[in-house]
Amino acid sequence: MHVDPKSLSADESYKLMTGVVVPRPVAWVTSRSGKPVSSYHRNLYGMDLAFVPPDRAGPCDVVFAALPAGEIMKLAPKLLDAGTKIIDLGADFRLKDRETWERKYARPHIAWELVKEAVYGIPELHREKIRKARVIANPGCYASAVILGLAPLIARRLIDPEKIIADGLSGTAGVGAEPDLLSHHPEIANNVIPYNVVDHRHTYEMEQELGLLAGRPVTVHFTPSYIPISRGIVTVCHCFPEQRLSRADLLEIYRDHYAGERFVKIFDLPAAPEESWHYRPYPWVAAVSGTNYCHIGLEVDEKRQRIAVLSVLDSVGKGGAHAGVQNMNLLFGLPEKTGLTRAGLHPY
Amino acid sequence: MHVDPKSLSADESYKLMTGVVVPRPVAWVTSRSGKPVSSYHRNLYGMDLAFVPPDRAGPCDVVFAALPAGEIMKLAPKLLDAGTKIIDLGADFRLKDRETWERKYARPHIAWELVKEAVYGIPELHREKIRKARVIANPGCYASAVILGLAPLIARRLIDPEKIIADGLSGTAGVGAEPDLLSHHPEIANNVIPYNVVDHRHTYEMEQELGLLAGRPVTVHFTPSYIPISRGIVTVCHCFPEQRLSRADLLEIYRDHYAGERFVKIFDLPAAPEESWHYRPYPWVAAVSGTNYCHIGLEVDEKRQRIAVLSVLDSVGKGGAHAGVQNMNLLFGLPEKTGLTRAGLHPY
Amino acid sequence: MHVDPKSLSADESYKLMTGVVVPRPVAWVTSRSGKPVSSYHRNLYGMDLAFVPPDRAGPCDVVFAALPAGEIMKLAPKLLDAGTKIIDLGADFRLKDRETWERKYARPHIAWELVKEAVYGIPELHREKIRKARVIANPGCYASAVILGLAPLIARRLIDPEKIIADGLSGTAGVGAEPDLLSHHPEIANNVIPYNVVDHRHTYEMEQELGLLAGRPVTVHFTPSYIPISRGIVTVCHCFPEQRLSRADLLEIYRDHYAGERFVKIFDLPAAPEESWHYRPYPWVAAVSGTNYCHIGLEVDEKRQRIAVLSVLDSVGKGGAHAGVQNMNLLFGLPEKTGLTRAGLHPY
Amino acid sequence: MHVDPKSLSADESYKLMTGVVVPRPVAWVTSRSGKPVSSYHRNLYGMDLAFVPPDRAGPCDVVFAALPAGEIMKLAPKLLDAGTKIIDLGADFRLKDRETWERKYARPHIAWELVKEAVYGIPELHREKIRKARVIANPGCYASAVILGLAPLIARRLIDPEKIIADGLSGTAGVGAEPDLLSHHPEIANNVIPYNVVDHRHTYEMEQELGLLAGRPVTVHFTPSYIPISRGIVTVCHCFPEQRLSRADLLEIYRDHYAGERFVKIFDLPAAPEESWHYRPYPWVAAVSGTNYCHIGLEVDEKRQRIAVLSVLDSVGKGGAHAGVQNMNLLFGLPEKTGLTRAGLHPY
Repeated sequence: MHVDPKSLSADESYKLMTGVVVPRPVAWVTSRSGKPVSSYHRNLYGMDLAFVPPDRAGPCDVVFAALPAGEIMKLAPKLLDAGTKIIDLGADFRLKDRETWERKYARPHIAWELVKEAVYGIPELHREKIRKARVIANPGCYASAVILGLAPLIARRLIDPEKIIADGLSGTAGVGAEPDLLSHHPEIANNVIPYNVVDHRHTYEMEQELGLLAGRPVTVHFTPSYIPISRGIVTVCHCFPEQRLSRADLLEIYRDHYAGERFVKIFDLPAAPEESWHYRPYPWVAAVSGTNYCHIGLEVDEKRQRIAVLSVLDSVGKGGAHAGVQNMNLLFGLPEKTGLTRAGLHPY
Repeated sequence: MHVDPKSLSADESYKLMTGVVVPRPVAWVTSRSGKPVSSYHRNLYGMDLAFVPPDRAGPCDVVFAALPAGEIMKLAPKLLDAGTKIIDLGADFRLKDRETWERKYARPHIAWELVKEAVYGIPELHREKIRKARVIANPGCYASAVILGLAPLIARRLIDPEKIIADGLSGTAGVGAEPDLLSHHPEIANNVIPYNVVDHRHTYEMEQELGLLAGRPVTVHFTPSYIPISRGIVTVCHCFPEQRLSRADLLEIYRDHYAGERFVKIFDLPAAPEESWHYRPYPWVAAVSGTNYCHIGLEVDEKRQRIAVLSVLDSVGKGGAHAGVQNMNLLFGLPEKTGLTRAGLHPY
Repeated sequence: MHVDPKSLSADESYKLMTGVVVPRPVAWVTSRSGKPVSSYHRNLYGMDLAFVPPDRAGPCDVVFAALPAGEIMKLAPKLLDAGTKIIDLGADFRLKDRETWERKYARPHIAWELVKEAVYGIPELHREKIRKARVIANPGCYASAVILGLAPLIARRLIDPEKIIADGLSGTAGVGAEPDLLSHHPEIANNVIPYNVVDHRHTYEMEQELGLLAGRPVTVHFTPSYIPISRGIVTVCHCFPEQRLSRADLLEIYRDHYAGERFVKIFDLPAAPEESWHYRPYPWVAAVSGTNYCHIGLEVDEKRQRIAVLSVLDSVGKGGAHAGVQNMNLLFGLPEKTGLTRAGLHPY
Repeated sequence: MHVDPKSLSADESYKLMTGVVVPRPVAWVTSRSGKPVSSYHRNLYGMDLAFVPPDRAGPCDVVFAALPAGEIMKLAPKLLDAGTKIIDLGADFRLKDRETWERKYARPHIAWELVKEAVYGIPELHREKIRKARVIANPGCYASAVILGLAPLIARRLIDPEKIIADGLSGTAGVGAEPDLLSHHPEIANNVIPYNVVDHRHTYEMEQELGLLAGRPVTVHFTPSYIPISRGIVTVCHCFPEQRLSRADLLEIYRDHYAGERFVKIFDLPAAPEESWHYRPYPWVAAVSGTNYCHIGLEVDEKRQRIAVLSVLDSVGKGGAHAGVQNMNLLFGLPEKTGLTRAGLHPY
């Protein structure tokens, strides 16, 4: 996908595949199929976008790349030479340790100089660097949830950095657009499918970014599973505090940390005396579906001295394409919320 | 819900429960609970709306009523006297036959004069009357789908008006906000629950509006079922043509009938030779979820002389709240699409 | 799958992939993959079945064939010569009209003599013929539901045979074992996917068998859709009675027609005065999941003179593999319920 | 539910609500409603069971109690005096620490003597004591999964007993039979709902039983969530080994520990070289739905020194009613597998 300042339509913006409203018209949406975009994205039926072959796409300000591992690193130098910025939704520029990248992605990296200048695309961590970047490495969906969830505790060195456990649940959109046995409805509809139970690639993003924040090594023990929802990521992080903290303490720390951040909300519905035990206000992933929001919930087991941090976001929203738009807004000096004010739907 | 021209916020509009963006700020959202709106609608968490008790709501231009049967007819005269227009999402003003209404809703009607002036709120049928109305009877969700699906055939008297069969499928949002055995996840998650298999209340709306269009009585044989999706209405109408018609004929008739209608799309993705049988372009309800669109698909069994009309819409969108906003836009001379340009999401 | 009288285990029967308990041990389960059965059917993990390549399978009493169209007709003559009976879960022997078969299955039929002797495998219609058959054509899943649902009305010539409308809903097990866009969870999970909206292949089975029962041509207007359940078929048949009939009349006719049939149940839970409108006893497909039961519900719109017949079954149960076992029991003089006494599960 | 040796039917056993085949006929199924069992459990339609009011139930060998907390402790002494054994599916007799029980269940315990003699009903831990018991405390569903999953490691003191983290996922059957906002389909269908994020009642069962096995205190950090499946429990336990262990070591330990246990299977499908990363053989909860099986999977992060133990079972099967039947078989000297040989279904 390419975005171009030449306006195709004066009075209305176009919708992207993900439902994001882009403030300036999309110039080129590329695919080798040559079909209408709505043949894949029926939600856009009648909205007049057509895929063009990549070699027919012209110059533009920024390219959003969503390619298999190893592809955008081949194209990047030429794009940058032409003055085009790159927002990579893939993993080519995320990890700063070359050996790790080459092992986990099973190929040599051919543009390592660009990794050095690329900025990891979480605005809440790297806003100023993103504004000046040429290459943005949009984070992995699980990594977004875990990093946003743990940043306030890690930055303040409040928890044991060696014993962080993160369980991740992903909707089947995470499997990708291609049908697969894991996302075959008769297999997954009543199921939970754990995968990459140890050493998932996103673990290294979490450890890298949290380690930077902490100023010391951080170990994350991460296990993901697919569950039968379509969109959405839920992570539950379990941490062991290095000092005694109450839930009220945590709420204050998190609100302070994310003060002024529009897209990260610390979830704490006021308790109502008549409500039963189970309405305690933990965030629900369905509520952020289709949006750029991340809701974070907090709990403390004072008896056993454990902190639980629950983060929810949409893997195609704040964990993917919407976060890419947020980064684009920063890159081009647009209001950061441009195109991202959509609220979620209810009923879910 | 009340809408008031006094702007509460200059630079941003508020989101309604349904995710609709309302062009002018919402003045009052009433409920007896006194809780924050986000305690029910977590998608709106952090967006600062609060329910107010109904008696604390002040004057406003228009009231959206979503009340149990029989309630708004009690309040309507006073509201109209105060110059407030009414968009009723319920059924109090839909049926023009008093005996039928009183039988199907099991109570006497106490404001029958208002039924006479109320306009049935499908803009594609009654746009000019809606502009001048004081009371809009927003249609039932199934009725919207069936009426929009059949209007072109009925208005042209192309089908047997006595043998129209309509099967309806509804997401569980149609059960309502209150938990019920029918929407209890362990009951419905792997199930189909037929209900009101004959003589469903919406049948009378369909027969009334289609009869008006045809200028002769129309009989609809309607059967609804709940299926395990959350939002969305699918209706499949089976009709017997009174003259031979091909699929191409139908597509032309429908495109002509709905020319200029932004929210009704005749679904016909271009066929691709390499695609297998099952990608024939019928509309998918998931693609219109959260929107004001109705997608209509068409098919003909030339061997057996049957027409199939498939209509999909969101019961909370074009079949409910969004259609109410479309009507409001007409009532107040706003651009009809105001607040309704949201496209659906994909992945669904 | 082959079944052999040589007992592999004296005290326990083996479970088939579908969860059926077969009374005599399964001798050979063939597949070219050579993997353990549980690599596909994890429900059988630890139960010691292994797929063998087809050419290593030895002689046996009966072969259950679940092959792509056109395959079993090639193998059948040799199997029959060896004294092996055939239960075909596919469509090679279902249709008695050669032109129709060759058109709908897009190939010439090379064993038409066997079609003539094959018996259509619905025991409730053809029990005596099945006992003596060499080749059983197990019916299509939709056809089973529609034929069982309409047989009592058709056999008594109570309805207009030209205006029968049947809407079918199928779980995604009907898509098959191979992943496909239609069964890709992010596409179907919140969706309804109509397909073959007119002239579906099963229509011809319905028309053939109902026509035989009626002694006159019968036209079925059938439209199927996939819905997000895994197993199960729901058909709603709409018929126009040729004489006035009440729901009580229908219940009596159906109970009489299916008296003594263990696997077809006329659904009519006693009404309870305190129950609300929506608990009227229509059958629920989830209740027959994993079983050989077909539940049939009945309703009459006395005002509009329409009959609605609701049939539910499991496409892998009474609409597939379990019905195959029922046929096998008849073929070999076993008690008809052998291996089929499993009730459904609740919660669903 | 009561089970009585007086046979009501010589040739066939009755199915219980959960689909279990009970070896000796059920004598009484009690409920105050007086309705047919199939009005709640449509899977049993036509199988002739009727609820009887509790006071009309006669004497019997054993009572299965599924009552709100605090109820069976009132009835138990009288039942035991009459020679009736008790299998309690609730929590009245599970916890051996009175203060904990009274705090977590918010009432005084009035039959504490019975708690002392009650046996915690996991046959794999307490088989001999169960054979001689009068009162069986059937375990909580999460507790069953976690205890079975960790027992081999805990009994051998291979892991840090203070840092065990357990994430639990439950199907909505766990919400109960009564509709609730948490199980309202429009709320849960696309959602994950965490609840009791710390200090869940089942935590104490886990700590009690694992502490007994370890011979030292054990702390479990447990967090449960509801996900949109109907039946089934998944627990992922994260442990830190006290010595270096490989996955092969773990598989050997677990196979040895559960040798001879029919209902606990160590899941390890043979790897196939051509298979992609994501088919690594972890257990799938759908495969044990409707059964008494628990599948356990194992993984080791050798780099970070973490063990992951994945346990899956059906909360109404091995985590509930089926385990109750297994306990009954032990109580009455029946073969332990009686009524429990049902395999799961596939497609799921």
